Parts: sequence; structure tokens; C-alpha cells
Amino acid sequence: MVSHLAFLKNMKLKLRTQNLYVRCGLAEFLGTLILILFGCGSVAQMELSGFAKAQFLSVNMAFGFAVTAGAYVCAGVSGAHLNPAVSLAMFILKKLSWKLFLIYCLAQFLGAFIGAALVFSLYYDALHVYSNGNWTVYGPQSTAGIFASYPSEHLSAINGFTDQVIATAALLICILAILDEANNAAPRGLQPFLIGIMVLLVGLAMGFNCGYPINPARDLAPRFFTAIAGWGSEVFSAGGHWWWVPVLGPLVGGVVGAVIYEVFIEFHHPSPNQKQESEEPTEGINRPHYELVQSSA
Amino acid sequence: MVSHLAFLKNMKLKLRTQNLYVRCGLAEFLGTLILILFGCGSVAQMELSGFAKAQFLSVNMAFGFAVTAGAYVCAGVSGAHLNPAVSLAMFILKKLSWKLFLIYCLAQFLGAFIGAALVFSLYYDALHVYSNGNWTVYGPQSTAGIFASYPSEHLSAINGFTDQVIATAALLICILAILDEANNAAPRGLQPFLIGIMVLLVGLAMGFNCGYPINPARDLAPRFFTAIAGWGSEVFSAGGHWWWVPVLGPLVGGVVGAVIYEVFIEFHHPSPNQKQESEEPTEGINRPHYELVQSSA
Amino acid sequence: MVSHLAFLKNMKLKLRTQNLYVRCGLAEFLGTLILILFGCGSVAQMELSGFAKAQFLSVNMAFGFAVTAGAYVCAGVSGAHLNPAVSLAMFILKKLSWKLFLIYCLAQFLGAFIGAALVFSLYYDALHVYSNGNWTVYGPQSTAGIFASYPSEHLSAINGFTDQVIATAALLICILAILDEANNAAPRGLQPFLIGIMVLLVGLAMGFNCGYPINPARDLAPRFFTAIAGWGSEVFSAGGHWWWVPVLGPLVGGVVGAVIYEVFIEFHHPSPNQKQESEEPTEGINRPHYELVQSSA
Amino acid sequence: MVSHLAFLKNMKLKLRTQNLYVRCGLAEFLGTLILILFGCGSVAQMELSGFAKAQFLSVNMAFGFAVTAGAYVCAGVSGAHLNPAVSLAMFILKKLSWKLFLIYCLAQFLGAFIGAALVFSLYYDALHVYSNGNWTVYGPQSTAGIFASYPSEHLSAINGFTDQVIATAALLICILAILDEANNAAPRGLQPFLIGIMVLLVGLAMGFNCGYPINPARDLAPRFFTAIAGWGSEVFSAGGHWWWVPVLGPLVGGVVGAVIYEVFIEFHHPSPNQKQESEEPTEGINRPHYELVQSSA
Repeated sequence: MVSHLAFLKNMKLKLRTQNLYVRCGLAEFLGTLILILFGCGSVAQMELSGFAKAQFLSVNMAFGFAVTAGAYVCAGVSGAHLNPAVSLAMFILKKLSWKLFLIYCLAQFLGAFIGAALVFSLYYDALHVYSNGNWTVYGPQSTAGIFASYPSEHLSAINGFTDQVIATAALLICILAILDEANNAAPRGLQPFLIGIMVLLVGLAMGFNCGYPINPARDLAPRFFTAIAGWGSEVFSAGGHWWWVPVLGPLVGGVVGAVIYEVFIEFHHPSPNQKQESEEPTEGINRPHYELVQSSA
Repeated sequence: MVSHLAFLKNMKLKLRTQNLYVRCGLAEFLGTLILILFGCGSVAQMELSGFAKAQFLSVNMAFGFAVTAGAYVCAGVSGAHLNPAVSLAMFILKKLSWKLFLIYCLAQFLGAFIGAALVFSLYYDALHVYSNGNWTVYGPQSTAGIFASYPSEHLSAINGFTDQVIATAALLICILAILDEANNAAPRGLQPFLIGIMVLLVGLAMGFNCGYPINPARDLAPRFFTAIAGWGSEVFSAGGHWWWVPVLGPLVGGVVGAVIYEVFIEFHHPSPNQKQESEEPTEGINRPHYELVQSSA
Repeated sequence: MVSHLAFLKNMKLKLRTQNLYVRCGLAEFLGTLILILFGCGSVAQMELSGFAKAQFLSVNMAFGFAVTAGAYVCAGVSGAHLNPAVSLAMFILKKLSWKLFLIYCLAQFLGAFIGAALVFSLYYDALHVYSNGNWTVYGPQSTAGIFASYPSEHLSAINGFTDQVIATAALLICILAILDEANNAAPRGLQPFLIGIMVLLVGLAMGFNCGYPINPARDLAPRFFTAIAGWGSEVFSAGGHWWWVPVLGPLVGGVVGAVIYEVFIEFHHPSPNQKQESEEPTEGINRPHYELVQSSA
Repeated sequence: MVSHLAFLKNMKLKLRTQNLYVRCGLAEFLGTLILILFGCGSVAQMELSGFAKAQFLSVNMAFGFAVTAGAYVCAGVSGAHLNPAVSLAMFILKKLSWKLFLIYCLAQFLGAFIGAALVFSLYYDALHVYSNGNWTVYGPQSTAGIFASYPSEHLSAINGFTDQVIATAALLICILAILDEANNAAPRGLQPFLIGIMVLLVGLAMGFNCGYPINPARDLAPRFFTAIAGWGSEVFSAGGHWWWVPVLGPLVGGVVGAVIYEVFIEFHHPSPNQKQESEEPTEGINRPHYELVQSSA
């Protein structure tokens, strides 16, 4: 009855660390693993069931709430970036050191890789039955799209790149607003939920061109996994060597979005001193902003 | 490593303003841009994918959460009207000066115009492939409906106007309730989410007649964009010069809704002094209202 | 510029009342009107568009969030019953006087009637085109189901009654839990949202037999409206005089659910004194319950 | 007018108990009953209506929000495990005594059994019409899948077991994160909502193989009910004696998930003393974590 407790305590004493780099790395690893496990899992459910058990809306909801899940797992430790494009934007905004930036990217990449491997083992039988063991990138029974993004036929590389820049920029604008205490931030314990809703929104509106990767780790690591696991090097050559677009596009888009939010909104917030004077200390629920605006007009 | 910081600081010093009109204008501009980018983006995804990647429910969800996104972007600065009908109602309710009212409308219109242009560039390739470069207002491959509303065949102008008045009035009643601290307001940091849910609700129940524009900026600015971008003047003449209905209807409806909420609910709230006496200071979660009602009965 | 303000102030002075019965009556009236306007509006959208603009899931979501909307409108004034079955349960639980109970029921009935009339005018053209002006209760182009419930062919009156009792009882159990501060109540400002989610849940799981009326006002008042507006007395005779089942069933179910919640949960809450001793004063977010349970074991 | 009050007071005096085991047992019983009533009810709605009134997405939403409903019913009393796999993980983590563990499992099993019986009576007529009174486990009009899980044709027992371990482990990781105050816990009054969203997520991504039972009580108790109610012993022999997989798999997966969360996240939280020093006392909404990370870097 107590043996398992002794065992857990023992483990804790041996494994525990206070090192910021290790703690944040572990957290981003597990968070991104959860994101990919649920996100790519839902694409597998849609494809392998022939759209009987999921449609594109289900996948949109799953990727949104997979971000919610991954964010709850690590938000209190690492801030829940889960995405090198977010980490790069935070580095640019001086909210992440370059050392941590590198560790975050590495952890996100590894987490996404293991997440993809878990989806593979979760749907191992279904993958075999669906594709007759013949894993292909294109064609009627292709399965590579479960793990990484491939462009629709109508899409040029230029439009693909624009797509990734616009989608990631819009996402970053929304994330920064949801976190901005000087604006109308969501309650901290619900920020993972609302950021998940924003990812759902990206999927509802910007998913047709190439499946909204908007995250280099989410796209590149599972692509590596498929290259190794049997889909071969075609996963990199397909779509006119498409693979680099969802890597570079989100990085550029994240920075663009962060700069836009700063220039249009954050730059002009009253400085904290001014703020504290003009506002009585309120708790939780404040008076509607409409009246704040009017009273100062 | 620090060069970008110097760059950002420099920009902030140069661009920063404390001017209320500029700050609110920038905020409403970016918020409405985000609303249209995601909202019209989802209609594009539905139409251009031939309903494979989205259905009407997806568009309902997208427009709802697009309002959530746009509201988070600007709620702490401008109060997140995002809609001239809301701004007019707030002006009527004495919560917005007439100067700010004009600035808000201008910013909302410009934001919606740029948002429509971004949707156009996001789906540039898909638009060309779908319509063979032949952009039409009606017909099997028509694409004007991605940007602005057009009435269903069954709809008369009178019923269309009623539709817009009822829908916008109902929306305003809900928004005012969600913000009303003397009623059962949502927590401030979640008001953008709940107002988004209300817009989703309008789409679920009042979307069949003409696609629930309920916002003059949302409808007119993208319509202007299409007139310029190649769809031509038919976007204004179509549907028996339909274009003015989703401009005037929401403005009337917003005022109607605001007056109804005032007359039925807000007029009769106990004055603040009475309130503070009868309620012990509670924090966050209060006792259920059922007991309040019973105890005073 | 100020004329409208003088006008509003004037109205307030004339119309304002502090009378509890009038205030609660007006609030329940407007809340139930909003509930029916959005709820029945979504059924109209589904039926009249031939399922192109809505499916049963959309209607489930709409009725759920329509309850959310109606509840925000009146929760801070009347407690947002919106349903005679809820009011009766609250009367049984001693949380509503019998005078208020009668006023609530009357206001809910009138609100639902006007809400149905607004749906009729919102979709007036569409109703005419869909049914060729021939309003029928059964048959391929029947439209009575937009306003009130009719049983599926497989359903006997006994099973219909059981259905209404079980569904309303389950709903009341959930509502009482969400409001119960001694249990794990939702934050007051989000209770309308969570009660809406519960109504969505009833629609997802208990909607097949007869469309989950679970509310005598929601069902009977729109049925009266259809009887007057042209569908005739068949709305009462149809389905073997089905109309009384969704009136009586929910009233019985509400009481059953309230008693079950009391007997299984509320009776055994520690009395307030005990509670305050064993808990340190926490704010907003508490420690997980799991540890509370273990520490007292 | 007061007779019913006297009746209720009388009942309370007779039935009230302060015994922890009885209170928690009653709470887990009623919570799990509500979970199964809504969850299996939605499967019944989907199957018996021939997918007209629900699709797999509706069932995913229903099971998610059924967990939300069940959790609100008992969270403040018993911690809302609703699942022996959760209870076992809590026992391993030293948050539940072994006596309570046994009581929880028994109560969950009984609640799930009665919940299944209520679904049976709710859809009694529909079950008869759908299957002509011939209740079968497999075949075109089979109905056993309404109550318990059966594997898809493609699934081996090994992959089925892996599926249950991975799904339950992922769910436990998310639940522990949502409850972890030293991480970024959800507000206590919204934890039932967010845990429901996580169950929805499991259904969106891990539902294809065998319908995500992830809960021994949810699967075994309704299976027993069907064995007794007329489906016969085939419910245990079907799928190569599949029944033990959704019993053992979740128990193993729950422990695996709990250990992973501890090792990757919880072990490394700063001890409470350190925490209180480095953080100023904040209320409700905190500064975004991004800055916390950066400031300590």
C-alpha cells in the first residue's frame, strides 16, 4: 500500500531539478508531444475512417483544443510556446533569451517527433489496412498528409508562403492580445483555452490552401518521422520541395504579427504609473470599457 | 542579439502616442481587420473548396470567434465595437462622444477594407482556379458572396430590412447584458469570448435570409473592395440595389436593441447606493441569484 | 446631439420601477423572448433551407446558446429561470415565493409567444416560399415543427412522458450543481454559459424522441401562436393530442431532478460553520479537490 | 404552500449524513450516472436515428460535456473522478486512500449501470422499432454499441490495448495539468468544463479504433446491463473477448499518464516556500508567463 509512494518519492529525489533550462525543455517537450498526438491523431481518424468518424471541422476543433491541452501541460513552467514561430517572436520582443530560444526549439522539435511516432503506433493497424502497407505521399490511399502538410493543387509556392505569413501573423496578434494585461487579457487560467480557440479559428478560415501548419516544429518533425518510418524522401521533394514553406513562412509571419501588435496597440498603452492612478483597484470583473472610453473623452 | 531591441525601442519612441483618438482609431482598425480576415476567410474556404473544407456551421463558428479575436485585440483600448451599429448604440446611450463615433466608423471601415484585401491575397490562387479568373456576382462559380452579403432568392427588401433590424437588435440586447455589471456581467477577460458566442448564435438562427451582415462596416467595405478589385459595379446593383439594406438595417436595429435593453432591464436596476447596502462584498463567484430573489420576496 | 439623451432620461424617469414583481416579470419576459427568437429561429433556418444552412447539431448549439443569451439578459434581475419547470423546482426548494412563481410563468409564456411571432416575421418570406402559403402540421413541407414539438413516429405517449421527465430531471440536476456554492459552482458571470452547454447536451443526447422541449413555456406558447397564425387547431390535436406531454412532463421532471440533487448531494453538505473552519480563505482558484478529499480521509 | 417544505426538511433530517464514505459514494454514483445517461444517450440518438439526428462529432461533444455535467454534480464533494482509471491514478499519487478507492469504483460502476438502464428506458420505443425487438451485437441493426465499446474490424487486441493506454495516459496528463495550481491551473469553477473539452479532444483524435472507452466503469457496467437486458453473453465474447481491453487498458494508461506528468512537470516545481518569495501576491489574472520566464533567465 505504501510501496508505490516510496517508489515515487525516490524517483522525485533522484530526478528532480531546479535548472531552468531542463525544466522548460521538459515542459515544452511534453506540451508539443501532446499537441501533435491529438492534432495529427485527429487527421489520422479523418483519413483512415474515410471521413466517417471525422470531417475537416473535427480536425479544426482537435488542433485547436490540442493546443489548449499542450498549453495547460507547460504554461506554468515554460509559457507554452509549443511553436518555434512563437518562441522567435518572444525572442524578438525581448521576452526570451537566445539560449532559451534554442532549447525551446529543440524541445518542440523532439516533442513533435515523438508525438508523430505515437500517432503511428496508435493507428498502426488502421494504417496497414487502409494503405495495404504501401505508404505513399500522393494518390487515393496516401497517408503522408496525416503527419505533415502538403499544398493543394491550386497553390503556388508564393501564395503558399503568403498564406503562412498571414496566418501566423494573425495568430500572433491574437495571442499577444489575449496575454496583454494592459489590454483586455483573458484570465490566466483560461488563456490556454482561448489560444486554442484562436488556432481553431485559423483552421476554419485559413485551412484550405495547405492545411495551416503555422508551426515549423509541428510540420518538420513529423515530416522527418515519415521520411524515416517508410514514406521515404518523397515527403521532402513533394509539392515542388514544399517542406521549407511551412518552416520559413511561420517564422517570418510570427515576427510580422508581433511587430504589428506592438506598433498598433502595445506601443500606445499608458505607462504603468499613469494606469494605476486612473484606475481604482478592481478585482476580477471590471466595468465595461465603453464607459472608460466615454469618461475620458 | 540586441540590435533588434534597439530597433524596437527606437520605433516605440518615434511612433508612440497618448492621443485618445489615434489610439482608439488604430485599435478599432486592427480589430476590424482581424474580424474580416478570419470571417470572410472562412466564407472563402467554404466556397472555394466546394464545401469540402467548411460548411455553413464552420462559417458561423468562424465569424463568431473572429469577433472574439478582433475584440481581444482592441477591447482594452477602444472597447471593441468593431461595428458602426454598436458605436451608434453606444453614442445613443451616451457612452461615446460624437467625435469618437466618427473616428470609430472610419477606422472600422478602413480595417474591413484591408481585411478584405488580405483575404483576396490569401486565396488569390484559389480564386483564379475556382472562377477561371472570371469574377462574378451571381451564377455557379460566383465569388462576390465571399466578401459581402447578397439576399436569398426568397427575400423581399422589406423582409431583408426586418431581418437586419431584428438580428442586430437581438445582438445588442445580448451584448449590453453581457457587459452590464448591475446585471450578471461576464468576467471582463471573457467578454470577447461570450460576445463571439452571441455572434455565432445569430449565424445559427438568422443566417438563412441574407447571411447576417449585421454590421455596416463588415458589409460595405468589402463590397467596395470587390467593386474595385474586379467584380465591378454589379456588387452595388445586385439584388435590387440590396447594398443599402445591410448598412441602414443594422444601424436602426442597434438603436432599437439598445432602447429595449434600457427600458426592460437597465432602467430598473437599483441605484448604486441601494445596491451596495443590500449586498455583502463578494468576490468572483456570488451566491446564486435564485436565493437573492427569494430572500427579498 | 443631446436631444436623445434628454429623451432617454425622460423615459427613465417615467418608466422606472423598483417593484420586484414588475422588474422580474419584465426580465423573464425579455429573456424568454430572446431564448425563443434564437432557438426557434434556428429550427426555421434548418427546415426552410432544406438542411443547407443548418443541421440538427446547429439547432442543438443554437438552443443551448439561446439559453445562454436569455440567461445573461435576466440573470442579475430574476435569476434567469426562463422555464416554468425551473421556476416550479425553485418554488419547491423554497427559493421562490408562490406569487413570483405565477408572475414568472406568465412572463415566460408571454415572452415565448412574442418570440415565436418574431421568428414568424423574420422568416415571413421564406415560410411563404417553402410551403406555398399552405401551413401544415405534418407532411413534406410542414412547418409547425419550427415552433413547437411533435413526437417522432416511433414514440408512444408513455415513452414521450418518460423522455420529458428524464431529460428535465437531468437538466435540473446539472443546473443546481452549477449554481451550488457548497459544491463546485461555476463562476457567477459564466453560469449562463455553462447552463447553455447543459441544454446543448440535452439536445445532443435526448433530442431524437420529440425534440427535447423540456420547457412548458417554450413549447405551449409558440404552439398557441401557430394555432392563431394559420396552422389551426391541428397543432393541438396532432400526435394524439401530444401537446400536454411537453407541458406536464417537464414540470414533473423538474421537481424529480431537484429532489434527487437534494437527496444525493445538497443534504450532506457540511453546514456553513464547519465549512469555514476547515477551509482557509481562498480566492478565485482553489486547490484541486482531490487533495481535499485525501487530506480528510 | 408550506407542506412541501416540511416534507423536504423532514427528509433532510432523516437522510442527512456527514460520513465521508457515504457522501463521496453518493456523489460519484450520481455523477457517473449523469455521465452515462448523456454519453450513451447521444450514441443511441446517432444509431437509432440512422445518423439523421447526430453524427460522430455530436457524440464526441456529448461525451465531453457529459463529463462536464457529471463533474459539476460531484466535484465539490468527491473530486469528480467518474472513472476508476482516474481513481487508481489518484491512489498511486497518494491523493486517495485505498478505502475510498474501492468505494469510488463501486459507486462509479453502480452509477454507470443505472445510467445505462435510463438510456434503455429513454429510448425504449426507438430501440424496439429500430431493431424489431431483436437485440444484436453485430450486424446492420445491431444496438449493443450504444452501451459498450466494440473494436473496429481493423483492430488487433494488441493495438486495442495500446490505444487505451495511450488515450488514457494522454487524458490523465491533461487532467493533472488542468488541476495543478503550481502550473497554470484552470479556475476551479471551470475545471469541469475544461476536463470535458479534453474528453471531447480524445474523441476527436482517438475514437476511430474502438470508440475511446478510456474508463472501465463506463464500459463494463453498461456491458453488464446489456448482458442482462436481452443482448446476452455475446456482449462479452464478441470481438475475441474484447471486454477486458477497455477495463485493463485504461487502468494501466491512467497510471502511466500520472507518472509521466509527475516526472516531466510536477517533480520540478519550485517548493511552495521558494514560490511565495519569487511571486508577488497576484489575484485572478496574472502577468503572462512569457515575462516570468524571461525575467528569471
